[in-house]
Amino acid sequence: MKTKPLVESTIERLIDYIIKNDLEPLQKLPTELELASLLSVGRSTVREAVKALVGRNILEVRQGAGTFMARQRLGVSTDPLGLTFVKNKRKLIKDLLEVRMMIEPRIAALAALAATQEDITVIHALRKEIEELISSGEDHTQKDIEFHMKIAESSNNIVLPTLTPAIQQAISLFVDVTNRTLRTETIETHRAISDAIEAHNPIAAHDAMTLHIVYNRTHIANLFKNTAFQEGDK
Amino acid sequence: MKTKPLVESTIERLIDYIIKNDLEPLQKLPTELELASLLSVGRSTVREAVKALVGRNILEVRQGAGTFMARQRLGVSTDPLGLTFVKNKRKLIKDLLEVRMMIEPRIAALAALAATQEDITVIHALRKEIEELISSGEDHTQKDIEFHMKIAESSNNIVLPTLTPAIQQAISLFVDVTNRTLRTETIETHRAISDAIEAHNPIAAHDAMTLHIVYNRTHIANLFKNTAFQEGDK
Repeated sequence: MKTKPLVESTIERLIDYIIKNDLEPLQKLPTELELASLLSVGRSTVREAVKALVGRNILEVRQGAGTFMARQRLGVSTDPLGLTFVKNKRKLIKDLLEVRMMIEPRIAALAALAATQEDITVIHALRKEIEELISSGEDHTQKDIEFHMKIAESSNNIVLPTLTPAIQQAISLFVDVTNRTLRTETIETHRAISDAIEAHNPIAAHDAMTLHIVYNRTHIANLFKNTAFQEGDK
Repeated sequence: MKTKPLVESTIERLIDYIIKNDLEPLQKLPTELELASLLSVGRSTVREAVKALVGRNILEVRQGAGTFMARQRLGVSTDPLGLTFVKNKRKLIKDLLEVRMMIEPRIAALAALAATQEDITVIHALRKEIEELISSGEDHTQKDIEFHMKIAESSNNIVLPTLTPAIQQAISLFVDVTNRTLRTETIETHRAISDAIEAHNPIAAHDAMTLHIVYNRTHIANLFKNTAFQEGDK
């Protein structure tokens, strides 16, 4: 193994190389040999640096094909906030809902101001897909995350579409928020949110999203109260 | 190099091992040989998995001493939201300030409700340190981030102390927000925030933080307008 400073400076220079050359998701990188020459280090140092960037979801190595830029969410790991390691899961979920309450109503308001006709079409399509999944009794967790992520994308803010799914994904890991008791409330508040965004009404969107999160929060609070929910349980 | 699925399943099992054994920051892990036996894989697979977790700031390898849990912010990389790769830095800074405006006033309000006497002492100490740095014309960027992080910690929310420094650090990477034009405003709004938290007044804390971020936002907007600020410039 190389000494740490050389590998670390190679990691930084490799990131600089990616930025300066404007590499896009899925684009192929030069070979290990070419990178070694470009960065004036040995091949084993390049290999270490590449592995570190794979771990950070910046690069991916495909056996026999070479090294490529990651597919999506460059540099964002599956658990960017390190929530896997929080021990008290009940407290974590409560705190994640507190963060959702801080950001999502305002995201909905921004989306109502900025959403294009295309965004609105996608939001309604996702809403309908979720309604169908609910009707047929299927799990709508992932579609629900997509719905909220699409609203965040429609807010025309670069940071929010990374932030909101990370938070929602973490909540869904530890608790089933798609309980049948919330079927009507989910359908109604999703409709109110989508309609307000379509009407470009930020205040209605803000209020509808607030109500949506309050329903979720109350549902989860009841779940904690009424069931033998244990830390770490799903 | 091992095939991807084996390394990936080893990474997952290594994370499970860390969680089940409740390993704390800086705690030493078993040797590579012991881990290989515990996880029933070869040593080279263990080595690959360990490297991946080093890249995600979960483990650190010290030459000659072994593998340890990372020092702090377990599983949170230096750039958890992948902001390094956003090309339009002006838009990024504007959007980061939008996120700060969403979360920080409410964080200050929560801190006013939950801060302990100890928290309040630290907040005032950091505020004074910043005032001294400003008076002597020194850079107070890092202390400023600590001040806001301490407020987030005082909010008694697990997620926020990871979120706020990531955002503030990203802003400070690309623009100097500690410009001398903001000296008086920074000192005054920091005092108002600290005093409101000490008085356990969430509304005053919320408003003081809002004003603080508005000053920052206006300052940065003027910077963009008046100077030859280029994308990627500091």
